[in-house]
Amino acid sequence: MLETVLEKPLQSQLAMRSQAEKAFRQMFENTCQAIEQLDGTKFVEQPWHRDSNGLWVAGSSSDNTDDTIYIDRALHNGNVFEKAGINYVSLEGTLPPGMTLQKSGALSTAEADHTTSSEGTPFFATGASFVIHPQNPMAPTVHANYRYFQVKGGNQPSYWWFGGGADLTPAYLFEEDAAHFHRVHKEACDRHNPSYYLRFKQACDEYFYIPHRGESRGIGGIFFDHLKEGSFEELLAFVTDCTEAFIPAYLPLVERRKDMPFSEENKQWQRIVRGRYVEFILTSDRGIRFGLASGMVNQQSIFNCMPALASWEYDDQPAPGSPEAMLREVLKSARGWA
Amino acid sequence: MLETVLEKPLQSQLAMRSQAEKAFRQMFENTCQAIEQLDGTKFVEQPWHRDSNGLWVAGSSSDNTDDTIYIDRALHNGNVFEKAGINYVSLEGTLPPGMTLQKSGALSTAEADHTTSSEGTPFFATGASFVIHPQNPMAPTVHANYRYFQVKGGNQPSYWWFGGGADLTPAYLFEEDAAHFHRVHKEACDRHNPSYYLRFKQACDEYFYIPHRGESRGIGGIFFDHLKEGSFEELLAFVTDCTEAFIPAYLPLVERRKDMPFSEENKQWQRIVRGRYVEFILTSDRGIRFGLASGMVNQQSIFNCMPALASWEYDDQPAPGSPEAMLREVLKSARGWA
Repeated sequence: MLETVLEKPLQSQLAMRSQAEKAFRQMFENTCQAIEQLDGTKFVEQPWHRDSNGLWVAGSSSDNTDDTIYIDRALHNGNVFEKAGINYVSLEGTLPPGMTLQKSGALSTAEADHTTSSEGTPFFATGASFVIHPQNPMAPTVHANYRYFQVKGGNQPSYWWFGGGADLTPAYLFEEDAAHFHRVHKEACDRHNPSYYLRFKQACDEYFYIPHRGESRGIGGIFFDHLKEGSFEELLAFVTDCTEAFIPAYLPLVERRKDMPFSEENKQWQRIVRGRYVEFILTSDRGIRFGLASGMVNQQSIFNCMPALASWEYDDQPAPGSPEAMLREVLKSARGWA
Repeated sequence: MLETVLEKPLQSQLAMRSQAEKAFRQMFENTCQAIEQLDGTKFVEQPWHRDSNGLWVAGSSSDNTDDTIYIDRALHNGNVFEKAGINYVSLEGTLPPGMTLQKSGALSTAEADHTTSSEGTPFFATGASFVIHPQNPMAPTVHANYRYFQVKGGNQPSYWWFGGGADLTPAYLFEEDAAHFHRVHKEACDRHNPSYYLRFKQACDEYFYIPHRGESRGIGGIFFDHLKEGSFEELLAFVTDCTEAFIPAYLPLVERRKDMPFSEENKQWQRIVRGRYVEFILTSDRGIRFGLASGMVNQQSIFNCMPALASWEYDDQPAPGSPEAMLREVLKSARGWA
C-alpha cells in the first residue's frame, strides 16, 4: 500500500501542504494546552508510524522512510473532562484501486470524482480532530475537525480542498450556550464571506443527523467539505480563523457549567445522549468511515472520539415537559441560533 | 407502504407461516419465563402496531386492519440481568422498489435474488430475537435469533427459508462454558444433519467478526441463513430443536457465574467488551441493517438489544498474561469448542 505512485508535487503544492499542516498543528497544540490548563490533567500522547509493510506501529518512526506524522492525545477521567480525544495527522498514501474518496466517505459531493484510478489514487491529507466529553452533564460535548486534501499531487485547481467544522452536543440545553457557540463561528465566517455561515450551518444540520432516530445529534455549528472556491491563501485564512474560533466558542461554556450541581439522573441522561453520539459515529460519520474503509488510520485513533460511557434504555422517552424532553424536541428540527 | 401487493398465499403457505410463528412464539414465552424465574424480575411488555399510514404506534391494534404482531419485552437492572431485550414479530409487508432483501441486509447469500420487483417485493417474516446481558461480568452475554421468511407469497420452493442462530459473548472466558454452549447446539444440529454443526459454527465465526478490530465479538455458536434445503417439515423440526436448545445451552452458565465475586476492574472490562458489542451491532449486524433500511421495524425494538452500559478507553490493551488479554487472544482466531 505504501508503494505510492504520486506524481511529484510541485514546490507550490508542497508549500500548500506545509501551510495547512502548520494551521492544524497550531490548533492541536493550542487546544490541548487550553484543555490541560482548565482540567489540571495532562493528555497522554501516542505517536504512530507505519512499518515497512504499511502497518501501524505505536511510537515515532526511528528512520526517515515514512513522512507520516500521526499523533493521538487522550485524556481520561480528568477533573473537568471525562474523556477527550484529539488527533493530528499528516499522511501521504494511495487509496486502493476502485476505492474513491467519495466511496470511502472522505468526500461528500456527487460532483465528478477525480479520484478513481486503476493504479489507486495517491493522496495527501493533513488535519486535526477533537472530541471532548466533559464530566458535568450540564457542560456540552464538542467535536471539531479541520482537514486539507490533495489528490494526485494537488497540481490542478480541483485536486485540493479544505473540509471541516465544529458542532456542539449538549445533554442539557442552555440556549445562551448554543447561541454563543454559533455566534463565535458566525463571526469567523463573516470575516471571509457573507454567505459562509448560513451555508455551513445548514450543511452541519444536514450532516449531523441520525436518520433512524429522526433527530440531530446536537445543536449544530458549521460544516463544509470539498471547499475549493477562491484561492488557497483565502481559504487557508478562513480555515485558520475557524480553527482559532474553537477555543473561544467552546471553553467558556465549560467554564460556565463545570461546577453546576447535578443528580445521578442527569448523569444517566448524559450517558443516553452519548449513546446517540455513538450511534451517529458508527452508522454515519464520514471520517470514521474513511478510516475504516481506507485502512489508512489505526483503530485506536479512530475510536479516540468515543465517550467513556454510553447507555441505552428501552423506550427512553423523557417525561413530558422535562428539560430532557425539551432537548429531544429541539433536536427534531433545525433552528437558527446566531 | 402497507398497500401490499401480495399474491394470495395458498393454504399450505399460510399453514407454514402459522407453524413457524408457533415455534418462535413458544421460544419467546419459554425464554421469557425462564429468565424471569432466575432473575425474580418481570419483563416490561410493549406491543406495537402500525397505523393507517404504516407508522409504528405503541400499543395493540384496536381494530383488525393490520395482522402484524410485534411485541418487545425489556428487563432493566434486574437481580441477575443488567439488561435483556427480547422481541417477537409476525409481519407482512412490501419492500420498497429497488430494495432487495439482500441489499437490505436480510439476506446474506450472493445467489440469485428473487426479491427484486418494480412494484416492491411483498414478504412475510416471523421471528424471535434475544439479547441478554447479565450483571456479573463472569456471566456471558448471549444473543439468539430465529426467523422464517416468505417472499411473494412463498408459493415456490425458493420463496421461503429459515435463518437464525445463537452466539455467546463472554467478558471472561471459562472454557467449560464455551464448550457447554457449543455442545448443546451441536447435539441439536446432529439430530437433524451430521453436516449442520460444523457448517453453521463456521458461518457463525464468519458472521460475528468485527473487521476493524480484527476480532470476533465472542466465541460463536451456530448461524445459518437462507436455509431451504429439504422439506419445510424437516427444517421446522430442526429450527424448533434449536429454539429449544437455547435455555439449556445458556442458563446453566449464568447460574454458575451469577454469584461469583468480581471487582470494579472486572465490571469496567465488561463495559469495554460491551463497547465492542455495540460496534458490531451498529456497523455489521444484518438484522439491525434490515430494520434501519427497510423502515419496517420501529427504533425502540431495534435498539432493545443494546447493553445498558458500554465503555471506550483509549488504547484499551489489557496487561499481558491477564484473563482479559487471554480473551482478546482467543477472539483473534476461530477455534473448535465442541
